[in-house]
Amino acid sequence: MCEKSLNKIENSQMSDIAIGIDLGGTRIKAVAIDRLGNMLHQHYQPTFDGDENGWKNAVAAAFRDVQDKTGNTDALVGISAPGLPNAGNSAIAWMPGRLQGLENFNWTGFLKTKTFVLNDAISAMMAEARFGAAKGRKNVVMLTLGTGVGGAVLANGRPYQGAFNKAGHIGHMVIDSDGDRDITGMPGSLEDAIGNCSIGKRTFGKFSSTQQLLEAYRKGDYFAAEVWLTSVRKLAIGLASLTNILSPETIILGGGITEAGKDLFEPLEQYLSLYEWRAGGNKTAIEKAWYGDLAGAVGAACFASEAGKI
Amino acid sequence: MCEKSLNKIENSQMSDIAIGIDLGGTRIKAVAIDRLGNMLHQHYQPTFDGDENGWKNAVAAAFRDVQDKTGNTDALVGISAPGLPNAGNSAIAWMPGRLQGLENFNWTGFLKTKTFVLNDAISAMMAEARFGAAKGRKNVVMLTLGTGVGGAVLANGRPYQGAFNKAGHIGHMVIDSDGDRDITGMPGSLEDAIGNCSIGKRTFGKFSSTQQLLEAYRKGDYFAAEVWLTSVRKLAIGLASLTNILSPETIILGGGITEAGKDLFEPLEQYLSLYEWRAGGNKTAIEKAWYGDLAGAVGAACFASEAGKI
Amino acid sequence: MCEKSLNKIENSQMSDIAIGIDLGGTRIKAVAIDRLGNMLHQHYQPTFDGDENGWKNAVAAAFRDVQDKTGNTDALVGISAPGLPNAGNSAIAWMPGRLQGLENFNWTGFLKTKTFVLNDAISAMMAEARFGAAKGRKNVVMLTLGTGVGGAVLANGRPYQGAFNKAGHIGHMVIDSDGDRDITGMPGSLEDAIGNCSIGKRTFGKFSSTQQLLEAYRKGDYFAAEVWLTSVRKLAIGLASLTNILSPETIILGGGITEAGKDLFEPLEQYLSLYEWRAGGNKTAIEKAWYGDLAGAVGAACFASEAGKI
Amino acid sequence: MCEKSLNKIENSQMSDIAIGIDLGGTRIKAVAIDRLGNMLHQHYQPTFDGDENGWKNAVAAAFRDVQDKTGNTDALVGISAPGLPNAGNSAIAWMPGRLQGLENFNWTGFLKTKTFVLNDAISAMMAEARFGAAKGRKNVVMLTLGTGVGGAVLANGRPYQGAFNKAGHIGHMVIDSDGDRDITGMPGSLEDAIGNCSIGKRTFGKFSSTQQLLEAYRKGDYFAAEVWLTSVRKLAIGLASLTNILSPETIILGGGITEAGKDLFEPLEQYLSLYEWRAGGNKTAIEKAWYGDLAGAVGAACFASEAGKI
Repeated sequence: MCEKSLNKIENSQMSDIAIGIDLGGTRIKAVAIDRLGNMLHQHYQPTFDGDENGWKNAVAAAFRDVQDKTGNTDALVGISAPGLPNAGNSAIAWMPGRLQGLENFNWTGFLKTKTFVLNDAISAMMAEARFGAAKGRKNVVMLTLGTGVGGAVLANGRPYQGAFNKAGHIGHMVIDSDGDRDITGMPGSLEDAIGNCSIGKRTFGKFSSTQQLLEAYRKGDYFAAEVWLTSVRKLAIGLASLTNILSPETIILGGGITEAGKDLFEPLEQYLSLYEWRAGGNKTAIEKAWYGDLAGAVGAACFASEAGKI
Repeated sequence: MCEKSLNKIENSQMSDIAIGIDLGGTRIKAVAIDRLGNMLHQHYQPTFDGDENGWKNAVAAAFRDVQDKTGNTDALVGISAPGLPNAGNSAIAWMPGRLQGLENFNWTGFLKTKTFVLNDAISAMMAEARFGAAKGRKNVVMLTLGTGVGGAVLANGRPYQGAFNKAGHIGHMVIDSDGDRDITGMPGSLEDAIGNCSIGKRTFGKFSSTQQLLEAYRKGDYFAAEVWLTSVRKLAIGLASLTNILSPETIILGGGITEAGKDLFEPLEQYLSLYEWRAGGNKTAIEKAWYGDLAGAVGAACFASEAGKI
Repeated sequence: MCEKSLNKIENSQMSDIAIGIDLGGTRIKAVAIDRLGNMLHQHYQPTFDGDENGWKNAVAAAFRDVQDKTGNTDALVGISAPGLPNAGNSAIAWMPGRLQGLENFNWTGFLKTKTFVLNDAISAMMAEARFGAAKGRKNVVMLTLGTGVGGAVLANGRPYQGAFNKAGHIGHMVIDSDGDRDITGMPGSLEDAIGNCSIGKRTFGKFSSTQQLLEAYRKGDYFAAEVWLTSVRKLAIGLASLTNILSPETIILGGGITEAGKDLFEPLEQYLSLYEWRAGGNKTAIEKAWYGDLAGAVGAACFASEAGKI
Repeated sequence: MCEKSLNKIENSQMSDIAIGIDLGGTRIKAVAIDRLGNMLHQHYQPTFDGDENGWKNAVAAAFRDVQDKTGNTDALVGISAPGLPNAGNSAIAWMPGRLQGLENFNWTGFLKTKTFVLNDAISAMMAEARFGAAKGRKNVVMLTLGTGVGGAVLANGRPYQGAFNKAGHIGHMVIDSDGDRDITGMPGSLEDAIGNCSIGKRTFGKFSSTQQLLEAYRKGDYFAAEVWLTSVRKLAIGLASLTNILSPETIILGGGITEAGKDLFEPLEQYLSLYEWRAGGNKTAIEKAWYGDLAGAVGAACFASEAGKI
């Protein structure tokens, strides 16, 4: 349960705990956290995608396990899921192709507990904004650099979902207007500039993962150097654009590509010193995400806790 | 004074009126509006930039004139100005090059009335969001297409200023990462793609204004056609990026370039049908701004009225 | 038989005639021409690609038919074929994928007549340079704008084949170094910029042929206008590059896309006035090809006639 | 005097020697060479540009000195100069801005010796093709990578000058059609991609010479690495384009930037393995120029020697 929201309910033990469930394509992760973000229990299990009853029951089992272990039956529940939630964040309204049966499924009825559903990228950002790399910040942008590039925005202290709860798809902003269109139709998107999904295209098939590319780069391969540094440069241009549009205090970078460490963050800072508009000498902080694969579950718990107070 | 804020003060005549002053480089415009956005009085005068006491006294004169004409001495005041406001919106904190003396000037003390100061692009957006093309919308993006390209964001019903009150500089988002850097250091920015400032560059010096370019385009000039349509395509790619990042209900386009009318809006809609990600069939509305040169003053009055209630 | 070469053999009736055979993937065209380029006989028949003996015998049949009809058994023979000829132009040395059995096939032995083999794009250029749009010119570039973009160069009056007889593949010059690589590995090639092969890519699948694109363009479709004019602009940039590299007196454009007529040639001239470096006021002439589908056969006859004299 | 041409004149001592004069903006270099390319004498002196009689007399003095030292009054003379020669290579026909009085100056009359005038880039290529890095080659492209990027073409064994003697301006071929136009009007030219003239633009003013850029690159600077490798990649794309257009046996690279050594040639080879179309396994050789600052004078002598035989 998240600090800010809990100021008013200190006397009640009941709702001092929130449960977050991350519904991924292969695994379900569930956590219970307290008001300080302490992890009270963690639960992992396979998703069984492909069998509608299978994965729904898996969510229910994860939920019950966490409920049992914490002995708390009043905790609000947040579910982090792929797709776009509906207006009230009670269900995922749009998620084609995977997890058949997810669209418009009534989780509150199914789990018999007030449940909030939110996009997984926004969940991860919530974890970082409340208890992680951007703790205490009011305006935050988070990017998850993995197969694709996910994103989320915190505006004036609150997760920003926008119309159709579609906001935050920052991976699908333009970087090169003459580039190929990505899966959303965006030409030369940030996702195509640095996501693993485009590694074959960026390297003419020479490498099949960012990790492979980085290994060659570290060995002094010229081609790998230019491909990687160009990708980082484009990321910097995207981040600099976001500082002009949203002016966050902090931009958090998460996802597997951040394992590149200084090979990512050092050139990134150098490029940002060229591209970021630092009016009045102010600059946006770039931080690596603190949470790993529990970010979605933790952030969903934060969201539920706060949403339940409004 | 803006609808939403006035719900609680219907019985009080005192604050039913707000005053907005638009401090432009050449002219000062001042208005008083009531809670429904009705214009009670308008005042225009030259700015006298270059003489610090001159333009400050001009603002004071404009303020007093509006105060006198409306007979209201309790109205809150909003000032729309170039530059970046400070954290409390009591002054402009950063504005190099023009209006010497503006930075950190204490308007509340000078005018002896509680005064809020905000960026002029955000002012214009506020006018449209409260009483104009996006009336009643909660999530809005506005772009002003003129010499440069200004921008502003309404998030969850509130003007979004971000850290350092710098948010909304959408003209300085990237469109082409290999393009020349604009005044903020951004390569191939939206401003350079469609703002009047780059017309010479885009046309190899053949045209000196968007209006000239459009005249040639309408006469069937091939070169003008490609330059103009490419500019509109890039605008569409920028707008589609914004729908992915911010998912506003409405994007408002203002500024002199919107005088192009259907030559702008028709190809823009066609391009958006290619580039906008319309998950679930949802699309962002594109609207032309309602307000003309009084947008800044009206929006500043809206801002002051709402800020005074918080 | 080609003018220049014939100066020395005016008294000989024997070799006043040359035979050209165009070996295409679907049709074989054969002609006999006299020293002035007059067409003495034409022969068309299917190629029967897929059956090695089939298409070889078809060539032989075409050859014998032309020989019979002209009653001339001394005429030299030129064969226009896809692929790269060997150093002596006695066979095609490299042609993967089609016409199995073509590589290194000994035509002189098979036809029992001295036979020269040359690339089909160079054949077409020879026809134009000797009897067509560039008659009398010494330095010529020809581009064939069709499914792909073929090319050929006449340098100092002679067809220029370069090392490995590979010269003239002008369709595979760069236009956009960040574009996708074409079938030869070239990023953003001229072929991809205007060849029919890329029409789907250039139009996001909206059109499947240049003809369809042009129909929409003529009806005022904005998207079609920008795609088409951008393609023509890129062609102009490619042609201007060629004028800087090769400075031909004439550039000949042939192929189906030239059926666009003034919709191609008018904007092309306008763009060339921007991009061509006209030092000393000199400009390269742009001409539409005169020959249609007999260019290859006619040019092969020219080549054989001249090669036989050397 | 150049090998090939000398076959027929072995018995004559008179014309066994040719004189070449390189008329540069700051220095005049003159040489006499024999039929094997042996340097018999060298002469250097300042040009005195700005004073028409001054630099003309300087050329005459250089000529007389070489004539005197070799005791040969029959040697043909070649002059390597900036600008475009006239059709008969007896004078420079077009050279704005520098060396006032050069245009259409009658050198044969002035020096009282048959004199040929040719473009300096073609001169340098002639030296390499006859006695240097491409000795014995028939089809050669040379690029000089310095402040600008000069170029020259040898086609079928002869220097190729094209219409208006303008051919070979390879630095002004396109690499990026959306780039800024260079001094000839070409967008995103090869010269702008790698010539010293664009170093400030490519590095946002951080470096003022390729040498500085390379020093930072060698120290591991990320920004310098990407700028340099991108420049080399673009050079590779340009060279690969030239192999498709002209299919030379050898491409020679000269000029100050080739001092980069393996930092240039190693990544260049790696990029060429991606971009060069090696049909049938054939590849174009990339060679560093052998001649330094005497290339122009030596090549001019070669040209004169050969031209005098035709």
